[in-house]
Amino acid sequence: MKAKVHITLKNGVLDPQGKAVQHALAGLGFAGVEEVRQGKFIELQLSETDPAKAEAQALEMCKKLLANTVIENYTVEIE
Amino acid sequence: MKAKVHITLKNGVLDPQGKAVQHALAGLGFAGVEEVRQGKFIELQLSETDPAKAEAQALEMCKKLLANTVIENYTVEIE
Repeated sequence: MKAKVHITLKNGVLDPQGKAVQHALAGLGFAGVEEVRQGKFIELQLSETDPAKAEAQALEMCKKLLANTVIENYTVEIE
Repeated sequence: MKAKVHITLKNGVLDPQGKAVQHALAGLGFAGVEEVRQGKFIELQLSETDPAKAEAQALEMCKKLLANTVIENYTVEIE
């Protein structure tokens, strides 16, 4: 099964990378960019064939390695 | 409008970051992880209110700044 993991910064956590992108876009002439938040997108190919088990496995991976749960949120979609 | 941008490496492009995550997961005891590909997920808050124009604007930003079109693919979803 394929698991698509989104890892985003929690609200209120400063995102200097996003701010840098926002300023760069403004410098390139893109007006009207109010906010930029940059996160991670991870695609996992799992040998597990049961969707529920694959999701549980991916969530466990987020908790243990992929996300910093102090400052980041994560979501998992199974395909 | 909000634009959600996914930037992923093209097929065939080596992903050392993904490989590192894969090995780290194996080291933590997660079996059955066949492949890991790491990409970027960028949320843009645009002042544009027309969905079609917002999408065109976001695609233009991908082309000019956000993605390296030689090795990366990008998709834009408008909400």
